[in-house]
Amino acid sequence: MLDDKKCKCENLIFTMNLIAGHVKKMSGDLDIKSVSKFVCKLVSAKKDLFRVFIMGAGRSGLVGRSFAMRLMHLGFTVFVVGETTTPAVHSDDIVIAISGSGETPSIVSLGKITKDIGATLITITSNPRAALAGISDITVKIRGRTGDLDEEGYLERHMKGEYRTLTPMGTTFEISTMIFLDSVIAELMVLIDATEDDLKKRHSVFD
Amino acid sequence: MLDDKKCKCENLIFTMNLIAGHVKKMSGDLDIKSVSKFVCKLVSAKKDLFRVFIMGAGRSGLVGRSFAMRLMHLGFTVFVVGETTTPAVHSDDIVIAISGSGETPSIVSLGKITKDIGATLITITSNPRAALAGISDITVKIRGRTGDLDEEGYLERHMKGEYRTLTPMGTTFEISTMIFLDSVIAELMVLIDATEDDLKKRHSVFD
Amino acid sequence: MLDDKKCKCENLIFTMNLIAGHVKKMSGDLDIKSVSKFVCKLVSAKKDLFRVFIMGAGRSGLVGRSFAMRLMHLGFTVFVVGETTTPAVHSDDIVIAISGSGETPSIVSLGKITKDIGATLITITSNPRAALAGISDITVKIRGRTGDLDEEGYLERHMKGEYRTLTPMGTTFEISTMIFLDSVIAELMVLIDATEDDLKKRHSVFD
Amino acid sequence: MLDDKKCKCENLIFTMNLIAGHVKKMSGDLDIKSVSKFVCKLVSAKKDLFRVFIMGAGRSGLVGRSFAMRLMHLGFTVFVVGETTTPAVHSDDIVIAISGSGETPSIVSLGKITKDIGATLITITSNPRAALAGISDITVKIRGRTGDLDEEGYLERHMKGEYRTLTPMGTTFEISTMIFLDSVIAELMVLIDATEDDLKKRHSVFD
Repeated sequence: MLDDKKCKCENLIFTMNLIAGHVKKMSGDLDIKSVSKFVCKLVSAKKDLFRVFIMGAGRSGLVGRSFAMRLMHLGFTVFVVGETTTPAVHSDDIVIAISGSGETPSIVSLGKITKDIGATLITITSNPRAALAGISDITVKIRGRTGDLDEEGYLERHMKGEYRTLTPMGTTFEISTMIFLDSVIAELMVLIDATEDDLKKRHSVFD
Repeated sequence: MLDDKKCKCENLIFTMNLIAGHVKKMSGDLDIKSVSKFVCKLVSAKKDLFRVFIMGAGRSGLVGRSFAMRLMHLGFTVFVVGETTTPAVHSDDIVIAISGSGETPSIVSLGKITKDIGATLITITSNPRAALAGISDITVKIRGRTGDLDEEGYLERHMKGEYRTLTPMGTTFEISTMIFLDSVIAELMVLIDATEDDLKKRHSVFD
Repeated sequence: MLDDKKCKCENLIFTMNLIAGHVKKMSGDLDIKSVSKFVCKLVSAKKDLFRVFIMGAGRSGLVGRSFAMRLMHLGFTVFVVGETTTPAVHSDDIVIAISGSGETPSIVSLGKITKDIGATLITITSNPRAALAGISDITVKIRGRTGDLDEEGYLERHMKGEYRTLTPMGTTFEISTMIFLDSVIAELMVLIDATEDDLKKRHSVFD
Repeated sequence: MLDDKKCKCENLIFTMNLIAGHVKKMSGDLDIKSVSKFVCKLVSAKKDLFRVFIMGAGRSGLVGRSFAMRLMHLGFTVFVVGETTTPAVHSDDIVIAISGSGETPSIVSLGKITKDIGATLITITSNPRAALAGISDITVKIRGRTGDLDEEGYLERHMKGEYRTLTPMGTTFEISTMIFLDSVIAELMVLIDATEDDLKKRHSVFD
C-alpha cells in the first residue's frame, strides 16, 4: 500500500504554480508583431474563405486539434492533417505547423511540401532558429521550458534532488501553446464579431 | 484589408493573463483529499498492472489523450476509449472520464456501462453535482469559468461591451484540466521514481 | 517453433474464396430500389451542396471513413462523426449510419438525435428489422454472414471441427459494405461525370 | 431532379462483380511461401509476446486499423502508428506496413526508421519492386488493379467510353488487402486455437 505521507501531492501543487507563473511570463514575452501577422492572416482566411490546415505530432498535434475545433466553431473552413476528409492543399491555403523543437521530422517534411505547393506556412515553435521556422512565412515563438530554471525555488529544490523535472519534454510548450491559441480565439471573436452563441450553434450535436 | 489598429491583440494578451490568474487560483482551490485518492489509485495501477482507460468528448477528449500519452510514457497500460486497439473494460480496470458539465450524454452513458461492469470510475469535472459524479468512485473538481467573473477588470470591461466572453464554452475547464493532469504526471514521476529519460525511451520514434 | 505443416494456410485460402463467393451472391441480392434512392440522394447532395455525415462504431466506422475519403475525393462536403472539425448537424444534412446489427447503442442513439434534428438518416445494415432501420429514411440491406452457412463445403468442414467460424463477428458485413460503398463511388463517378484525375487532384498531398 | 433512368445502378452492379472476380483470382495468385512466413511470424508474436505495430496512409491505413482491431480481439499486443498510446518501437517488435504503390513517402520513411532500430518489417504491397519491399524482411504481394483490365467486358465497355475507371486509385488493392488480412485472421484463429467467443470477450464494451 502507498505511504500516505507520499500522497500530500506537494509536487503537484508546486507544478501547477510553476506553470501558472510560466504562462504569466509568456504573455509579456510574446512578439506582438508576429502574433498580429498571424491573427490578421486568420481574419483574412475567414473573410475571403481561405482554407486552414493544422498539423503537429504527438501532444502538439492534440493542441492543434483543440484549436482546429474552435476555428470550426467560429465558421472557418479548417482541416486537421491526417484526418479522414482532409483534402489536398492548394497554393491559396494556410497551413499551421506546431512543433516545440521545430525539428520534428514528419512536420518539417510536410512543411517543405507546403512551401513547394506555394501555400502559406505558419509555424508555432519554441525554436525560431530551427528548420521549420526557416521556411515559414510567419513564425510565432512560444517560450518553452528553458525559462523555468530561474523560477523561484525551482532550481534550489531540483539541486537538492527533491524532485526531478516537473514539466517533462514538451509539457511547458504544449500547455503554453494551448493557452496562446485559445487567446487567439478570444481575439478573433472580437475581430470577426462572433458571440459564444455563434460558437455553440456549430458545436457537435453528437457528444 | 484589416484595420491595423484592430490588430493590437489587446484581447489576446488580456485573455492570457486572465487564464494565468485562473490557473493560480485553481491550485489553491483543489480538494487535496480527492486529488490524493486519484493519484494513489494511479500509483497502484502502475504497481499492480491495472489497466487505465480514458474518455472524453470534444476538446475534453483531446486533453484526455494528452494525459494518456504521458501515462504511456510512464509505462502504464493505458487506452483511449474510441481508438482502434482499445479492448473491453473489465472489473479491475480504471476508467477516467473528463466532462466539464458532467452531463455529456455519451460520456454519462459510458460511465454507466463502466459501473455495470464493476470497474473503478474516476471523473474530472467542474460540476460535482451532475450525473457523472453521482456514479463515480472518485470525483476531482476542476474550477471552470464561473470563478473568472470577479477577475480584476474582467467584469467591468465586459459590462462596457468592450469584449464578449474571452474563454467561450469549456475553454477554462479544458486548459485547467490539462495543467492539472500534467501536474499529476509530475507527482507520479516522483512517486514511481521515473526520470525524464525513462519517458523519452517510450516516446514514439515515428514523429 | 511453429509446426510447418500447420502453415499451409489452407484456412486462409478457403476463407478468401468463401468471401469472394459471398460478394458475388451479394450483388444479386441487393434491393435496387433502396440502393437507387441512396445513390440519387448522394447525387442531389453533390449538386445542391447538402452536407454528408458518416458514422459507425468499430470496424464499421473504419469502412465508413473509407467511403467518406472517396466522397471527399469526389468533391462532396463530407464529415466523419467524432473527428475534430465535424460541425453540428442541421435539418438539410444527410447522415449515413453503418451498423451490421442495426442495434449498436451509440449509433442508434445518434440516429435518434439525427431524426430529432430533422436531417435525413440513411442506414446500411444486415438487419432491416432493427431499431436503426425503423427510424431511417432509407435503409440499404447488406447480406451478412448467415448466407454463408450453405456455402459449398463450409458447413460440412465446420461440422467436422476442422475449423471454427472463418469470418468472425461482423467480418462479412464489413467487407461487403466496403465493396458496396466503393461500387456506389463507381456509380457516382458516372452520374456526376468525374474522372480518376478529378479524384487524384483532391487526394491528400501529405501521405 | 435526377433522371430516373440514370439511377439503374448498372455501373454499381458491374463493379461489385468486377471486384468479386478480382478477389477470386487473387486467392489463386498469392505467393503461399511469403504468406506462410507472415502468418508464422504473427503466431510467434502471439506466443512470445512480441508487439505488433501497423501503419499505412489514407485508406490503406484504415484497412490496417481493421486488422489491428481483430489482432487485439485475438489477444495480441498491437498498436496503430499515429494513435495516442502507441509507444516507441524496439528491435524485437514487428512493424507491418501497408502501401499499394510501395512508395508512399511517409510510410517509406517510417520503414527506414523501423529497419534502423532493427525491428522486423513486413510489407503488404502491389509493388514488390518498390522502395518499401526492398528494405522489408517479408513482403506479401497483393494483386492491384492491373489484372482487371482483361476482366470480361471491362476493357470493351471502357473503350466505348461507357464508363470511366470503376475502381479508382488504390480501391482494388485496399479491398483485396482487407479480405486477405481477414483471411489471415481466420488462419490465426485455427493456429492459436481461438474461438469467436474469445474474440467477443475482448470487443469494446463502449460501442
